[in-house]
Amino acid sequence: MNIGIVGLGLMGGSIAQSLSKNHTIYAYDLQEDALRYAEETGIITQGFSNLSAFFQHVKVVFVCLYPRAIPSFLEEATPWIQKGTVLIEISGVKTTVQSSIQVPEEAHYDFVMTHPIAGREKIGVRYAKASIFEKANFVIVPTERNLPSSLSLVETLAQEMGFRNITKLTAKAHDDIIAYTSQLTHVLSLALVNSEPDQIDVKKFIGDSYRDLTRISMINEILWSELFLENKQALLERIDAFETYLQRYRKAIEENDIEGLKALMVDARLKRLAIEEGNQ
Amino acid sequence: MNIGIVGLGLMGGSIAQSLSKNHTIYAYDLQEDALRYAEETGIITQGFSNLSAFFQHVKVVFVCLYPRAIPSFLEEATPWIQKGTVLIEISGVKTTVQSSIQVPEEAHYDFVMTHPIAGREKIGVRYAKASIFEKANFVIVPTERNLPSSLSLVETLAQEMGFRNITKLTAKAHDDIIAYTSQLTHVLSLALVNSEPDQIDVKKFIGDSYRDLTRISMINEILWSELFLENKQALLERIDAFETYLQRYRKAIEENDIEGLKALMVDARLKRLAIEEGNQ
Repeated sequence: MNIGIVGLGLMGGSIAQSLSKNHTIYAYDLQEDALRYAEETGIITQGFSNLSAFFQHVKVVFVCLYPRAIPSFLEEATPWIQKGTVLIEISGVKTTVQSSIQVPEEAHYDFVMTHPIAGREKIGVRYAKASIFEKANFVIVPTERNLPSSLSLVETLAQEMGFRNITKLTAKAHDDIIAYTSQLTHVLSLALVNSEPDQIDVKKFIGDSYRDLTRISMINEILWSELFLENKQALLERIDAFETYLQRYRKAIEENDIEGLKALMVDARLKRLAIEEGNQ
Repeated sequence: MNIGIVGLGLMGGSIAQSLSKNHTIYAYDLQEDALRYAEETGIITQGFSNLSAFFQHVKVVFVCLYPRAIPSFLEEATPWIQKGTVLIEISGVKTTVQSSIQVPEEAHYDFVMTHPIAGREKIGVRYAKASIFEKANFVIVPTERNLPSSLSLVETLAQEMGFRNITKLTAKAHDDIIAYTSQLTHVLSLALVNSEPDQIDVKKFIGDSYRDLTRISMINEILWSELFLENKQALLERIDAFETYLQRYRKAIEENDIEGLKALMVDARLKRLAIEEGNQ
């Protein structure tokens, strides 16, 4: 099958690398050097920086753009999209994408929203790595307009890429969950690093725990500031829920309530172990 | 050299495994099955559950007990400790250990406080793993009473175990730093898991970020509730400093302050990258 990638960054590049085993991959990007790099390393067959040439080759296209860039891309691309094309969007928020993208009633393409829950703390196609998808989670957010054939195509491709759990959710349910599993997680990692005490050479006193908790603070601030704001309400709620528990720890510590601390710790351990067992 | 291990759990077992390459290891523990397991797997040469027999073999001893168990152990052990023995304590807090342990003026042994900053989310000698020390950090908290020869012995053994940065700190400085790099880190991981939304099968919607941030929530609550309380003031201060930044994120998100968010993120990324570069 011919598969198109719009936006050949870390995610677009990783999808290209993963699917290039069984498919012919074409990419559209304005960065010529990203296209040439991907051609030379065999991640893609051919790269284009103009839309008309690109869309002549592909009817299945992964749109790997930041959420706020999608509407203007669609507007520009529509004239060149072939009838029956399936566009697969992959960003980390869904409610605002859904409301900002007005796919016209008479649209000759199908726009499918997905979220491959995987990534790296790196930017650009040079860090593309197909293995980030292995055993990872994948969410599809179908709309009433999506054709069953498009949804099953997306599911098949996600399986080919190595994703394990493929779940269908509404945009609202997706955003509520991701506010917790992904965005809150990033906020905590960031604030932990921000709150580093002054005048200490921290790296001499850290263990794997600190290293693991702060890895994701090496963040792409352009993407993530957008993701946080595009999912504002849900994220604020999750910050407040976290805050409640942080204050329970604070109080238990202040009051020397060792039994209270242990009870909180056991609750956390059991919840976390349930995830571990679910992944064996 | 003959080396003794008191308390053959995860840490004691890992130290034994690591040093058994070049030394003869004897262990003291009340759990017979832990001793037999360690003998059978060659981690130790011989295990004892009575102190007099144990201390006949060793004059260099790692004391791998929870902080609050150390004073009563010392009291019981003192009659059996040979003259000139070096006792090396390894717990994660220092100020309260220092104040709770009254090494008598005329003591015939040297008591050296250290903190090997390494571990696993497991309990018991069966999970011992020497490799947790490779390239890890090690802190020595010398007192005025410690002999230079004891300190340099400890340093040599830490190097043999594979530790990279070996730093000397006061008890207060150690506890202030560890409240941040280790204890706060555990509080955040725990509270994140505690705040899991109800009725969601979280494991289907997580990525590596959540997995990494929550790994250490599979905690040994008996050890860690003690560590939190033994370093209460410093930990409360670090929770409050973290809280300040969490609220900055909250405010920036609420006010759609994308530039403010980016600035916080860049600050975190640069701080975290400095650690990464320091570890290459």
